[in-house]
Amino acid sequence: MKFLKKSFPLSKVYTLIEPGPVLMMSTARGGRANIMTLAWHTMIDFEPPLLGCVISDRNYTFEILKTTGECVLNIPAVALAKKAVACGNVTGEKVDKFKEFGLTPVEASRVEAPMIGECFVNLECKVADDTLVDRYGFFILEVVRAWIDPRVKDPQTFHHRGKDVFYASGKKFKIRNKMK
Amino acid sequence: MKFLKKSFPLSKVYTLIEPGPVLMMSTARGGRANIMTLAWHTMIDFEPPLLGCVISDRNYTFEILKTTGECVLNIPAVALAKKAVACGNVTGEKVDKFKEFGLTPVEASRVEAPMIGECFVNLECKVADDTLVDRYGFFILEVVRAWIDPRVKDPQTFHHRGKDVFYASGKKFKIRNKMK
Repeated sequence: MKFLKKSFPLSKVYTLIEPGPVLMMSTARGGRANIMTLAWHTMIDFEPPLLGCVISDRNYTFEILKTTGECVLNIPAVALAKKAVACGNVTGEKVDKFKEFGLTPVEASRVEAPMIGECFVNLECKVADDTLVDRYGFFILEVVRAWIDPRVKDPQTFHHRGKDVFYASGKKFKIRNKMK
Repeated sequence: MKFLKKSFPLSKVYTLIEPGPVLMMSTARGGRANIMTLAWHTMIDFEPPLLGCVISDRNYTFEILKTTGECVLNIPAVALAKKAVACGNVTGEKVDKFKEFGLTPVEASRVEAPMIGECFVNLECKVADDTLVDRYGFFILEVVRAWIDPRVKDPQTFHHRGKDVFYASGKKFKIRNKMK
């Protein structure tokens, strides 16, 4: 897979995360990569972009993220929904999820964790604040490099409503807004 | 306005918040109510439902929430988008937003802050953890009572993509998922 993404301004990362899309987090330790799927995340600050996400300590990713302090947050478009959800249904302890689900690991520039080639956005992240990790599994990540596929216009993200239910993002509209 | 909502199980509150909809937070202090609009929030735990949200200390709501420790998180459907965004463009320091935008304050059961009658969901919340409030404006709230309008089936929420750009939630679909 040829890497055709372009660098995305850190000051605009919030526009990608704020709508609340399902994300795929990739991590690596000892040369072994893993992926988990998550939907509990929020922007925390604009620039440098900080975002918070909840990783249960029952997830294989929890220990890896805690130990390495690094990950990539990948945003899958709706076409990738089935694979993304399937990724969340097995543990990386037993399975190489990149191989299992035919996903392409792409070398990142600032972190050891690989990016998922098939996702239209990749955010290279380092743990910036672990104050609430032991209490809630809440990691605050700083996005240190962001990539976007310039061929994807108005990407359709997808969102989780619990259990088997998801929805795709729908019609775009504009309202005059003074806020960022 | 007749209050036709029914109580909603706290164990399912995550299905409302997880998709990342724009929210309206109502607060009250000294008999004076206020509303702010926000999009930076995440679920933190299932039950009791905890959720985290970022309130900038430049917002009038910040001090009220910090002092009273109470609020209501109201979820507007897309039909309310214009009013919700307009609410975010003025400060409650000068304007009674309920009056200004023709919104109906409805008495809550567990908190002083009024619920917004026009929103299809109302979550009565108390501040549960303020560890990261001074650092990031990050409040962790416990939902102590939840209300939903039973007449609203498959509610269309709306989501912010930054500045003037929003989108409505789109097509619902199902994928077999072992996770909550």
